[in-house]
Amino acid sequence: MIDPAPVKRTELSSLGEFGLIKHLTDTFVCEQPSTIKGIGDDAAVIDYGEKVTLVSTDLLVEGVHFDLSYMPLRHLGYKCAAVNFSDIVAMNGTPRQLFVGLSVSNRFPVEALDEIYAGIKLACERYHVDLAGGDTTSSVHGLFLSLTVTGEADKQDVVYRSTARENDLICVSGDLGSAYMGLLLLEREKKVYEANPDMQPELSGYDYILERQLKPEPRTDIIELLKKAGVKPTSMIDISDGLASEVLHLCEDSGLGCRIFEDKIPLDAMTIAAAEEFNIQPVTAAMNGGEDYELLFTIAMNDFEKVRAIEGISIIGHMTEPNAGTFLASNNGPLIKIEALGWNHMHDAH
Amino acid sequence: MIDPAPVKRTELSSLGEFGLIKHLTDTFVCEQPSTIKGIGDDAAVIDYGEKVTLVSTDLLVEGVHFDLSYMPLRHLGYKCAAVNFSDIVAMNGTPRQLFVGLSVSNRFPVEALDEIYAGIKLACERYHVDLAGGDTTSSVHGLFLSLTVTGEADKQDVVYRSTARENDLICVSGDLGSAYMGLLLLEREKKVYEANPDMQPELSGYDYILERQLKPEPRTDIIELLKKAGVKPTSMIDISDGLASEVLHLCEDSGLGCRIFEDKIPLDAMTIAAAEEFNIQPVTAAMNGGEDYELLFTIAMNDFEKVRAIEGISIIGHMTEPNAGTFLASNNGPLIKIEALGWNHMHDAH
Repeated sequence: MIDPAPVKRTELSSLGEFGLIKHLTDTFVCEQPSTIKGIGDDAAVIDYGEKVTLVSTDLLVEGVHFDLSYMPLRHLGYKCAAVNFSDIVAMNGTPRQLFVGLSVSNRFPVEALDEIYAGIKLACERYHVDLAGGDTTSSVHGLFLSLTVTGEADKQDVVYRSTARENDLICVSGDLGSAYMGLLLLEREKKVYEANPDMQPELSGYDYILERQLKPEPRTDIIELLKKAGVKPTSMIDISDGLASEVLHLCEDSGLGCRIFEDKIPLDAMTIAAAEEFNIQPVTAAMNGGEDYELLFTIAMNDFEKVRAIEGISIIGHMTEPNAGTFLASNNGPLIKIEALGWNHMHDAH
Repeated sequence: MIDPAPVKRTELSSLGEFGLIKHLTDTFVCEQPSTIKGIGDDAAVIDYGEKVTLVSTDLLVEGVHFDLSYMPLRHLGYKCAAVNFSDIVAMNGTPRQLFVGLSVSNRFPVEALDEIYAGIKLACERYHVDLAGGDTTSSVHGLFLSLTVTGEADKQDVVYRSTARENDLICVSGDLGSAYMGLLLLEREKKVYEANPDMQPELSGYDYILERQLKPEPRTDIIELLKKAGVKPTSMIDISDGLASEVLHLCEDSGLGCRIFEDKIPLDAMTIAAAEEFNIQPVTAAMNGGEDYELLFTIAMNDFEKVRAIEGISIIGHMTEPNAGTFLASNNGPLIKIEALGWNHMHDAH
């Protein structure tokens, strides 16, 4: 298991507020022409000219959204940034600037924050996003991260959740349920470790599902492929809470029903194997697990051929008139009503 | 003293995540044409056309930035929003959209969050800012607020901290030190109350300094008056940490020194009276107290007559060449080096 506090320990108070911000952000370089002014004034200044500005914000709380006993701090930083970028991608836009609010108790040394920022930097560099501002403060307990990302899009390119139409095809990128299986694995190994600290965690051979949980990627490649193919989705959302919850968002916001086919839901072989090991249905991990950060979107029927030709996109169902309800057609026959499993962040960590 | 938990108690978990967001934000109405899409999608969509987008973000932590034993929740909401708007004003811009991240433990009922949002709503309505998104989640301990505001400005109107020039006049809006005296008063009455809960707090007659602490206002009026007078400040910042810290920011970022005159620093009569009562120098409250959210800015010498004609602006000194240092000319003669008093947020509540 990973120790959240690396060996060297510089007290937060030794740097002072402005010293700490400078220390954490000094190695970030702004590369976007739209970033007129980044860190270092009352506000960042961003210029999208003829484009619209997309803004999304996320709050991540230790003990609620992440568990530092198995989430390395560098991965935490990467994941927080990547997840935020994914919200801009889900609007069919491109993330451009990131703002990071960080609140920590004195239990964390500067080196721990350095690890978080190293992860954020990796994500920023990979997706060409500028760190353009933020706020750093102390907390009485624990670690809080608040991220805001701004992105750009041509006005006519923005895709909302509310604009799916009847008979549109429902598509999903990548595969689903793997991030949740990675989480179950990490939680199991944590319990084993707590019961017997001499035990080595059994994580080898599970690389894919662990990476899906610890290092999700925003699917900027998918929106580029769709653009290249001349397809504009009719509605779109990213999968943070599980397929069930997200498809219900599209249905509710667009005033429609849906039919999803279980046998069309993309599952990785390792997800299926791990689900068997944990004695759960793989489709349950896909429907209710969450944190896959794949894109769920709808397309017009006459874009079917174009989308079918794109690797990494599965067509899993279609939108229906609202009275037809929201159903999953299961492999063994019966229709199962799709329901959201509520808000487990309010109740316990996941 | 104010009870943070009102009488009626609806458990947070009874609403669910989406229910809670809807409950808290339902009465907010977007009024800005630039808000193309507010709450309810992966990201807000904002369109400033030819303008630049200003973005500022703030993190506020219970027990660090505010004390709920004397800060009513409605005032907390108002203040968090107002303070965030002030950052946009300090860029010479106009705040337009607000994004609120709220993280709370189950110790808070829904009614407590309603109070916070009622305060946020008041500020949004007063300054015509649209609530356009956010995130609500649970925390293990306490209350965290993360606010991001976006604003607009013509590109040529934006004023930075780094662009003051030698011999520019240093100006400040309103009066200083009053918010800090309000804080000292609230802290004193809290101690009295803790020692003897039957004692009534002695707050009458102190309205002005209490209001300055509990309900600060962003000085949108000042930037409008300057615009009307045809004056563009050469540099600007808002006073959140005290005059000393802010004037040092302008000096450091512009590569200059400064000379401030103690007898020019605007002080309200009640601030002076309260400072006497607490046996501190009023100038200390102004220099190091903070939270006044007045504007500190520099102007070219030939704008002197125009600015002198504007009520509510004091000229308190001038910028010097860097080797002249950063000094306060005290009333009784000697020059005192201006120094920042460090980052007390990292050490204890204030």
